[in-house]
Amino acid sequence: MNDKTADPVTLISQLVGDPSSADQVIWDDFTPEFTADVLEQLPAPTREVVWLSLTTDQRTAVLPQLDTPVQDSLIFHTTNDELASITPSLPLRTATLVVEQLDSKSAAAVIDALGLTESEAVQRNLASAPDSVLRWMRDDSVTIQADWALSEVVIHLKSNYSSLPWYTNTLLVVDENQHYLGKLPLIMLTTRSPETLVRDVLDNDTNVILSSANEAEVAALFDDHRLIQAAVVDEDQRLLGRVTIEEALTVIKKRSGDQFMKTAGMEHDTDLLATPLKSYKSRGVWLAINLVTVFMAAGVISLFQHTLQQIVALAVLMPIVSSMGGIAGSQTLTLTIRGLSMGQLSRGNLGWLFKKELWVGILHGVTWALVVGAVTAVWFGSPMLAVSIALALFLNLLAAAVVGVIIPVVLDKFGIDPALSGSVVLTTVTDIVGFTLFLGLATWWLL
Amino acid sequence: MNDKTADPVTLISQLVGDPSSADQVIWDDFTPEFTADVLEQLPAPTREVVWLSLTTDQRTAVLPQLDTPVQDSLIFHTTNDELASITPSLPLRTATLVVEQLDSKSAAAVIDALGLTESEAVQRNLASAPDSVLRWMRDDSVTIQADWALSEVVIHLKSNYSSLPWYTNTLLVVDENQHYLGKLPLIMLTTRSPETLVRDVLDNDTNVILSSANEAEVAALFDDHRLIQAAVVDEDQRLLGRVTIEEALTVIKKRSGDQFMKTAGMEHDTDLLATPLKSYKSRGVWLAINLVTVFMAAGVISLFQHTLQQIVALAVLMPIVSSMGGIAGSQTLTLTIRGLSMGQLSRGNLGWLFKKELWVGILHGVTWALVVGAVTAVWFGSPMLAVSIALALFLNLLAAAVVGVIIPVVLDKFGIDPALSGSVVLTTVTDIVGFTLFLGLATWWLL
Repeated sequence: MNDKTADPVTLISQLVGDPSSADQVIWDDFTPEFTADVLEQLPAPTREVVWLSLTTDQRTAVLPQLDTPVQDSLIFHTTNDELASITPSLPLRTATLVVEQLDSKSAAAVIDALGLTESEAVQRNLASAPDSVLRWMRDDSVTIQADWALSEVVIHLKSNYSSLPWYTNTLLVVDENQHYLGKLPLIMLTTRSPETLVRDVLDNDTNVILSSANEAEVAALFDDHRLIQAAVVDEDQRLLGRVTIEEALTVIKKRSGDQFMKTAGMEHDTDLLATPLKSYKSRGVWLAINLVTVFMAAGVISLFQHTLQQIVALAVLMPIVSSMGGIAGSQTLTLTIRGLSMGQLSRGNLGWLFKKELWVGILHGVTWALVVGAVTAVWFGSPMLAVSIALALFLNLLAAAVVGVIIPVVLDKFGIDPALSGSVVLTTVTDIVGFTLFLGLATWWLL
Repeated sequence: MNDKTADPVTLISQLVGDPSSADQVIWDDFTPEFTADVLEQLPAPTREVVWLSLTTDQRTAVLPQLDTPVQDSLIFHTTNDELASITPSLPLRTATLVVEQLDSKSAAAVIDALGLTESEAVQRNLASAPDSVLRWMRDDSVTIQADWALSEVVIHLKSNYSSLPWYTNTLLVVDENQHYLGKLPLIMLTTRSPETLVRDVLDNDTNVILSSANEAEVAALFDDHRLIQAAVVDEDQRLLGRVTIEEALTVIKKRSGDQFMKTAGMEHDTDLLATPLKSYKSRGVWLAINLVTVFMAAGVISLFQHTLQQIVALAVLMPIVSSMGGIAGSQTLTLTIRGLSMGQLSRGNLGWLFKKELWVGILHGVTWALVVGAVTAVWFGSPMLAVSIALALFLNLLAAAVVGVIIPVVLDKFGIDPALSGSVVLTTVTDIVGFTLFLGLATWWLL
């Protein structure tokens, strides 16, 4: 069966067409990573059928490889008994996610099934913030004692590891009480004499991660210091685990991907192939907020109904003023959000950015006011209509530049993510300012 | 002078206030990375003053650490003589960027100043595509010969390296003709006996990068196979260089950051602190395209001037239909673009996604048609006006779902980046469909 299905696209097509054929696929021929990829690309209902066709061992291997939204939905479709049986074999991070999804009674049963160390670690994780490093650090550090000779280190490695865990380029050195002292590059084992003591050749390590660190801090640490792995320590400097560049990469990608999704109000709908009902619910809030703001804009227009009745050309032209303001403002907004998220914006250069964006707004304001004014004059043959739209457009582009810088900076200061709410605040401002200016000036000059 | 300025924000504030104070900063007290960070956060004019205050050695160290747009602008502000003197000391990637920015006469002079190998490499890079791996691979691979014993490898490392280059967890093994054979994990030097031959313990390496690879392919390779470094080979399997996770990370971040910037038409204005004139120019095309599309929408509205004159409420309500369509469509569009860029969308599941988004569109269409219809009925007391806007909104949300999936898939098929042009195509469709339906239905039913 499997010889024709090594190509994921073919396999996915086949499973979408006939989910029950999952029973005939020999999943053990594939790596857990491959199976996870296929599951992520299956429609949510098909995904559940395929998930149920896997053996317990296969599920234990595949679950940690899945994207978080897919993980969540499949945990939801696994019985509590099975979760209790697979959780002890899962990495700590995935185990925490599992326990978190269960009601308190089932969660207690699953925790009971864990060993003492694991159950303590899971409970510590549950008590920590959702983006805390404790939740997603690894527990596979290769640790050695400071008072060992290098020859002892070699014996330790040879007898305990057939191969080292991924991303282990240095060994983590601790004292007898598990306090983290620094790291020993593997190459030292080759270039130094065997009787050398670890404590004499270890590298002091200032790039440690405190257990209170969040995703942003870890991402910044890996970004700034070319690390392959970093030790996680508690407030007493005791070694708790490690973060490798793999986790850091996941966090970095998640943060920029999140930014992209957030600007469309899609931060809760990241599962491409969720069920329609789930997507419907998770996108509703954003559409509701937008509806309120667009009704505010409609309210502004309604104040000028008398003017619109006299000069119907205003109704034709008004989308131009609001749309150009929205686009220009979103350019400034996007640049500012990116500068904030990359840590390139501070009180040292904010004033300069503001002045610069205002100048860009003035230049674009003049350019597009002239273009739109000229087209309007030719189209409707009314010089004063042309002057009204030109002035309204110019001022709206200035407003767009100002709020495009101010909104994200202010939202960020109050701890609100500007990628999430910036664009809706911006277009509300540019719509209302644009309609008020254009219809107001026209009422004043043309009636 | 430097003791008060170790904090970048303070230093940036001071330099923005008085650029000439750059002369008093002792830049050698800082790492090149720190200086690069500061330069990136300075306004473009100040940045140039500071750049000119650096010594040639400092510039050589700092230039490779800068973001590409900042690099480009500073190369532009360096004399050709100085470029000719620093280029031989630059990493290959940066050297290529320098030569690329020069006119052909100065470029020839700089290439002449390079050694034979470097000048060949630079010319090969110039002939390759801008996102080709040849441009940004590293030339610091640690290579060893297959017929050496491990003891010879250790001697080679001890006599040639005081420390290994960043991200060297494996040694790259070649034959006498530089053909790449595989990699040797450093730990082998410790765990195997010294007389073992390299060829007998090397790992076959299937994760090599062909010289024809582009950014997307390299990003996918590192993403899928937990690599720290990968060898770059030509079509004859000859080793050309290596890519480490650092470059891969830069590419991955660039690609997701690019996506975010592109959706606002900002892909050519990535320098937060460029001069106003530069930003004005690079954003103009996007505003011009938007102006054309919004004039098309205005053209549609103008077809219904007679109706608008009779029923001014239409002018008040029409932004609601177009705005809700635009927001709902951009949600579908964002999800589809993300699915495409993450490789989760194929002909195997595209049909399902399409049906799912259509269902989400139907559900939202019914929901918001009822809400907006009810508000309209109460606000304007006209049942038929309420029915018109409800039906127009419902159909526009369906159209938004359909084009939200189709546009990115079609653009992608034709090799056009959907993040760049998807949103402008989408809002053009939702504006025109929305205005036509609402004003058309109202003309039919209400006049």
